[in-house]
Amino acid sequence: MRVSLPQLPILEWVRTYNHSTFSSDLLAALIVTLMLIPQSLAYAMLAGLPPEVGLYASIAPLVLYMFLGTSRVLAVGPVAVVSLMTAAAIGEHAAVGTHAYWQVAITLAFLSGAMLLVMGFLRLGFLANFLSHSVVSAFITASALLITANQFKTILGIRAEGDNFFVLTKNLLVQASGSHTLTVALGMTTVGFLFLTRKYLKSSLIKLGLPSAIADIIGKACPVIAIGITTGLTWGLNWEAAGVKVVGFVPQNLPPLTTPLWDLELWSALLVPALLISVVGFVESVSVGQTLAARKRQRIEPNQELVALGACNLSASFTGGFPVTGGFARSVVNADSGARTPAAGFMTAIGIALTSLLLTPVLFYLPHATLAATIVVAVLSLVDLQMFRHTWHFARSDFYAAAATLIGTLTMGVETGLIIGVSLSIALHLYRTSQPHIAEVGLVPGTEHFRNVTRHKVITSDTVLCLRIDESLYFANTRNIEDRLNAEVAVHPALQHVVLQCSAVNDVDASALESLETIEKRLKDAGIALHLSEVKGPVMDRLAKSDFLKNLSGQVFLTNYRALQHLDPATVARATVL
Amino acid sequence: MRVSLPQLPILEWVRTYNHSTFSSDLLAALIVTLMLIPQSLAYAMLAGLPPEVGLYASIAPLVLYMFLGTSRVLAVGPVAVVSLMTAAAIGEHAAVGTHAYWQVAITLAFLSGAMLLVMGFLRLGFLANFLSHSVVSAFITASALLITANQFKTILGIRAEGDNFFVLTKNLLVQASGSHTLTVALGMTTVGFLFLTRKYLKSSLIKLGLPSAIADIIGKACPVIAIGITTGLTWGLNWEAAGVKVVGFVPQNLPPLTTPLWDLELWSALLVPALLISVVGFVESVSVGQTLAARKRQRIEPNQELVALGACNLSASFTGGFPVTGGFARSVVNADSGARTPAAGFMTAIGIALTSLLLTPVLFYLPHATLAATIVVAVLSLVDLQMFRHTWHFARSDFYAAAATLIGTLTMGVETGLIIGVSLSIALHLYRTSQPHIAEVGLVPGTEHFRNVTRHKVITSDTVLCLRIDESLYFANTRNIEDRLNAEVAVHPALQHVVLQCSAVNDVDASALESLETIEKRLKDAGIALHLSEVKGPVMDRLAKSDFLKNLSGQVFLTNYRALQHLDPATVARATVL
Repeated sequence: MRVSLPQLPILEWVRTYNHSTFSSDLLAALIVTLMLIPQSLAYAMLAGLPPEVGLYASIAPLVLYMFLGTSRVLAVGPVAVVSLMTAAAIGEHAAVGTHAYWQVAITLAFLSGAMLLVMGFLRLGFLANFLSHSVVSAFITASALLITANQFKTILGIRAEGDNFFVLTKNLLVQASGSHTLTVALGMTTVGFLFLTRKYLKSSLIKLGLPSAIADIIGKACPVIAIGITTGLTWGLNWEAAGVKVVGFVPQNLPPLTTPLWDLELWSALLVPALLISVVGFVESVSVGQTLAARKRQRIEPNQELVALGACNLSASFTGGFPVTGGFARSVVNADSGARTPAAGFMTAIGIALTSLLLTPVLFYLPHATLAATIVVAVLSLVDLQMFRHTWHFARSDFYAAAATLIGTLTMGVETGLIIGVSLSIALHLYRTSQPHIAEVGLVPGTEHFRNVTRHKVITSDTVLCLRIDESLYFANTRNIEDRLNAEVAVHPALQHVVLQCSAVNDVDASALESLETIEKRLKDAGIALHLSEVKGPVMDRLAKSDFLKNLSGQVFLTNYRALQHLDPATVARATVL
Repeated sequence: MRVSLPQLPILEWVRTYNHSTFSSDLLAALIVTLMLIPQSLAYAMLAGLPPEVGLYASIAPLVLYMFLGTSRVLAVGPVAVVSLMTAAAIGEHAAVGTHAYWQVAITLAFLSGAMLLVMGFLRLGFLANFLSHSVVSAFITASALLITANQFKTILGIRAEGDNFFVLTKNLLVQASGSHTLTVALGMTTVGFLFLTRKYLKSSLIKLGLPSAIADIIGKACPVIAIGITTGLTWGLNWEAAGVKVVGFVPQNLPPLTTPLWDLELWSALLVPALLISVVGFVESVSVGQTLAARKRQRIEPNQELVALGACNLSASFTGGFPVTGGFARSVVNADSGARTPAAGFMTAIGIALTSLLLTPVLFYLPHATLAATIVVAVLSLVDLQMFRHTWHFARSDFYAAAATLIGTLTMGVETGLIIGVSLSIALHLYRTSQPHIAEVGLVPGTEHFRNVTRHKVITSDTVLCLRIDESLYFANTRNIEDRLNAEVAVHPALQHVVLQCSAVNDVDASALESLETIEKRLKDAGIALHLSEVKGPVMDRLAKSDFLKNLSGQVFLTNYRALQHLDPATVARATVL
């Protein structure tokens, strides 16, 4: 197993850092900070944690990423899906609002960071490949729906029960009449304001003649504006006394130094959630990182990203934070705002640190409903129902895996849903490869090329049967191939030769070798010789290690054309004349 | 999902049943009965059950198999590996020797039968394909070693502890000095007798001039002879009083009518063991069935075998038995002895029924050590260490999976060992397919054929890069393929066209489609056109359902040769001249 050497990607860009890069980064950092303040508070609340924890998680990780990350524009910090997964993971071990809950969150960040680091050093980034695009997309959609339903408890000011999305939604509807009117008015107005400004404000401001950059800053500042206005109103009109829940006292300090709980029992209980959080966070981060890098013909190094994200999470766990990763929306904003190096992240960290030090007292009267509205508007943009239509038409098995992920996540929670989706997509893939497509092929007249007899007008021989096996030969499909060959031989009475065209056989394992030997013996007993053609180098190398080729009744041909030329020249001559 | 209609394979052979078939079957039944009496008693003991349960399990299942089985010669009944798995499964729920233990065994047979039946009706026989040959072989070897170590407790007459093979073996050696001398003498003599007669008796008798058939019967009767002699000695010399453990009272009756326990909690605890017993039993049964059928150019129908084995196990559970399947050694003996139809099994059932009714009183003084010796000699022939050497040379991943199965089974028990082996073989397969082999190919001079540039002397073009992807495109390998293409493009400065030769691409899923679209866009941005060649019918059908082909910057060519001919005629002309 190859092991990565430690790298410091910062060295690649810091030498050419200049005044122009600095001012680009500073503008991007300003915009991202405006966006991150409400998001960090809101996602901490989503994770069941006090709001200041969101700020803590948005400082040290960004600094670490500057040194270790390979994406120039990835914006690390709390994100919606990982916060939801964090809440699900901690919920079983501590009660929301307790000090123990926070400690478990710190421990979760530690475990997730350690796992990412180990995966990075052992170059296990490929593990993320087993989350198919459709499963990830369905999982994010389901998470967004779950988050939305949960936030509506806060927006309506009611206590609806249910981990299951459908039960929770039903309870929300049943209990909606008991909503707290002022909270609903506040929350829904904020949702409306954020939704409309997100959709129309920037273009309207540009139409009014504002420069695009300034319109952009104003657009991105809307959640902060919403926070300012609703906090001001709640303070001025004493809405807290009227029953609107507010954030309350937030300590005014830099992140504290913390340590994870050294509790092996807790660790083993958190192993699976930490692994899922790590992998999901990594996939989200790498996807957005790769997309944004490709735009500028840059590359990111997935295994180094694992190391960087691992260090980010470890730093979060030692500074009172919770699991973080590269956020999709925030990174896109960072790139669009002109960030050119991860130094922009460092400046964002300074902005958040200043917020923690100076601005927390003004958050006392910030209504929970405002934060919930921020979350709802942010996550609803993650819902992608189109994908289900596409996969239904393109590849049914992707659709099934995505649907199982969606339903599993909505009804059984994030961990179970994700595990179901990944398992099903792997199982469906294995099922498909265990039922290989085997085509009888014939010569395309005037060429040396062979194609499926049922799809193309081709020339075939009575004495030579050419079969193309469209799959690697491995334990799951060897019995099927034996069956198919038995059946083919039974319907071709004049047969003297079988040629297996192996152009699509990429691998042969020990079970398949046994099967090939069985097939060869059965054919020989029936007076038929077995030949191979177009065997690839790696497969030939492997077969050469066994006695199979030595004992083969037929030959191995470089091309199927040469095989037919040798075994039945008359048919080849007929095809050439045609 | 296709569902099997009920079938009655008996109809295929019963109409042509005649005197000659009858006498062949009768002789085979006689030999198999002689073999089955000691085995059924011994395997019941191995499963932790009273000896008569072994007889019960060898009556009704054989009758059912006659009606439903598709193998002409499969001998159903208790077998060593399944008996060991039965003991492991029940051990957690009841104490050996209690009535509850027997009831759990009956329930296990019921669940296993029901599962097999459902798998048969839903045509899920392919599930057995996921047990690779190497894993099955390693599992059987490990089971045989575990069984042998356990039987040595009985042969030495000591109580050594340990589920772990190595711990148990160590304890056996440590405590060997406390062995019961008479039991050891009896047991080891029996082992020696059985081993020598198994190996040399038949050939010696033939040399002495006996007809082969009679020599065979005498050879097969040796375990019965050993039972007769040791039982007689124990009775005559009053060895029971000297401390030799004997079978004791065995009820003299036909199998009782029994029902499984209707206890949902127990059922859910037995689900995994029952599934593993079903799959392992099915694999053992189908392997020997297929081998023996192929000898006579017959075929067995795996999904109908599931139905037949399911019915056999259900009948076992309603007649006081325990899980059964088609036994390897016994079926080979049945075939070699001339059995021509499953009626031989029916006659064997009559033989065992008569034994239950008439002969059980003589089993009182049968020593446990004799039965243990019978088991040891039977299972040691299942040990196959050669396989490890073969797979080490041929396919390292098969070796790893086999080694993990062996060590897992020996140290953590049959269920864990088997699950480890199957999971590892699937994981290794997925890992391999997630790292696809991608070869740059060039034209073999004088042909229309393309091969790997690093292995063959071929002609390549400066402006056209031909890459052959040696794997189906699916979620686990799409990111690798993107990476590889990015890297290839970076090292070919004059590039204008990339042709992906898809002769080994058997499938494209939704994740891979997204990746192809990403690749196409990136190449287009770099001024390079993407072409495909040799796309197979099923893959082409699927791509046609998306917008990919519509937006493709290049073309789809029937052959890679035509692609190069069209994109760079000069290079093709050069190759033809050579």
